Amino acid sequence: MITALAGGVGAARFLTGLVKLVDEKDLSVIVNTGDDIELFGLHISPDLDIVTYTLAGVVDEEKGWGFKGDTFQCLETLKKMGGESWFALGDRDLATHIFRTSLLNRGWKLSEVTAKITGAFGLDVRILPMTDDKFETRIITAEGSVHFEEYFVRNGSRDDVLDVEFFGADTAKPAVGVLEAIMDAELVIVCPSNPVVSIGTILAVDGVRDALRHTEARKVAITPIVAGAPIKGPADKIMWGLGLEVSAFAVAKLYADFLDIFVLDAVDAAEKSRIERLGIEVKVANTLMKSLEDKVALARVVLGN
Amino acid sequence: MITALAGGVGAARFLTGLVKLVDEKDLSVIVNTGDDIELFGLHISPDLDIVTYTLAGVVDEEKGWGFKGDTFQCLETLKKMGGESWFALGDRDLATHIFRTSLLNRGWKLSEVTAKITGAFGLDVRILPMTDDKFETRIITAEGSVHFEEYFVRNGSRDDVLDVEFFGADTAKPAVGVLEAIMDAELVIVCPSNPVVSIGTILAVDGVRDALRHTEARKVAITPIVAGAPIKGPADKIMWGLGLEVSAFAVAKLYADFLDIFVLDAVDAAEKSRIERLGIEVKVANTLMKSLEDKVALARVVLGN
Repeated sequence: MITALAGGVGAARFLTGLVKLVDEKDLSVIVNTGDDIELFGLHISPDLDIVTYTLAGVVDEEKGWGFKGDTFQCLETLKKMGGESWFALGDRDLATHIFRTSLLNRGWKLSEVTAKITGAFGLDVRILPMTDDKFETRIITAEGSVHFEEYFVRNGSRDDVLDVEFFGADTAKPAVGVLEAIMDAELVIVCPSNPVVSIGTILAVDGVRDALRHTEARKVAITPIVAGAPIKGPADKIMWGLGLEVSAFAVAKLYADFLDIFVLDAVDAAEKSRIERLGIEVKVANTLMKSLEDKVALARVVLGN
Repeated sequence: MITALAGGVGAARFLTGLVKLVDEKDLSVIVNTGDDIELFGLHISPDLDIVTYTLAGVVDEEKGWGFKGDTFQCLETLKKMGGESWFALGDRDLATHIFRTSLLNRGWKLSEVTAKITGAFGLDVRILPMTDDKFETRIITAEGSVHFEEYFVRNGSRDDVLDVEFFGADTAKPAVGVLEAIMDAELVIVCPSNPVVSIGTILAVDGVRDALRHTEARKVAITPIVAGAPIKGPADKIMWGLGLEVSAFAVAKLYADFLDIFVLDAVDAAEKSRIERLGIEVKVANTLMKSLEDKVALARVVLGN
């Protein structure tokens, strides 16, 4: 039993390699839902969809999200009606949002809907939203507070981050299966995702951090920061805004209370001893994952094969 | 001021000719909403959309509904997820349903949403849903009671009709502007639509029939039945199921309490005197509307030019 904590694109790419080495049925993925947003009354779960589409092999690999070859007829028409169109909603992608929203409105839990959707995509991996409850990551800038997706997509992460707020974190309970997936695992993998807004959100859900501290699983994290910069996304602006160093070390420190092993990129090998001083074992590897071979090789390092 | 009572395809085709002769700003169209249906949590208003798309010049003219050249990527994907797919939802068409539903869920009335949508399509015609309230046409067959669209689209109008039910007719109030549009008009046109499930629904809304009886407008209806059969749709099965003769005469009789003039197709000229005995003036014309010229010529007859 392996359980991964995942954000969006980086996590999904890593998991593509992992499923070449392990049986999908033995893998659970706990996915960040802090980016979930309602647009046009539709419940959109960006990270759940990225992980699902990627593992199902239908993702637009260049962008890392959405369906390969999707069209945007509906969004174009919504735009003409005066609707907001900053969030790309492909026609096939919309089916997921419409299907999810219709089931949620009928009283299904997000975790139940997710199981139904991943099943429809033929996945045997168990994909779990971190919570079925409202949890919204908001970014505070000099302009005020905006939803993470508004900051990241609409504003293109331009403004400096002053703070990050997890709206709903006080009351959000882990979705059914989340704590068990951590407690029952032999290996917990923290994917190379934003340590604050992708992994930090999962860690903020009631009981998750405790479960990570108490599980007997080996806990391995892969650095999302290479040579002082994130592979993708605004982790640098966010870490900087929170007064954190933008380094693999700073990420390791955020996980130090539960982590056993940190996988550091070869270009950052100089940080090895500094991380080891946190009581964390360090493995040095190529973490860039340009090809499927890269992904599988990285997964092999994480599995300790 | 001209006001038309309209169902879907037949009405929309007639109105295309009418707007060549009158100023769009002087025209109000009261549209049947008994066919409205919720699919995937989206509020779909088939007749409002047919009239809007047709007058906006974006309709698929061959089918008479939906967008010209629309794609069906979203519906194909919904089908794979196990969603119902008997109702054709094009990708561009979906924008209307998503936009409408999101505004309704924010508390807008259907009439307000409709004004917003028709405005976005650049229409100056005032398109009014007959009611903002729940009103659902159900067809009773030996198999039980089904929504009109389930009978018409999913079942292909195969089963014999035992009865028709207007669910919500007891409580549905006319949308703002509906009664005024009838009372203030110089001419009220009953479009060539199904007399039971398209026009009968409008007439069943509280106050509409009374307004038609009391308005000083000239009231002209165009036959939807030619040579004992409807031009389109299941009017024959429905009239037969209600014990009505499938004839222009039977339609005229349904409107006899308020109608001044009935436009009969030339092939049914033999019915003229029978309809006149109802106290209704009869005009004989070609009602088939194959070309735009046909539509304009028919509109000219209705306008009495």
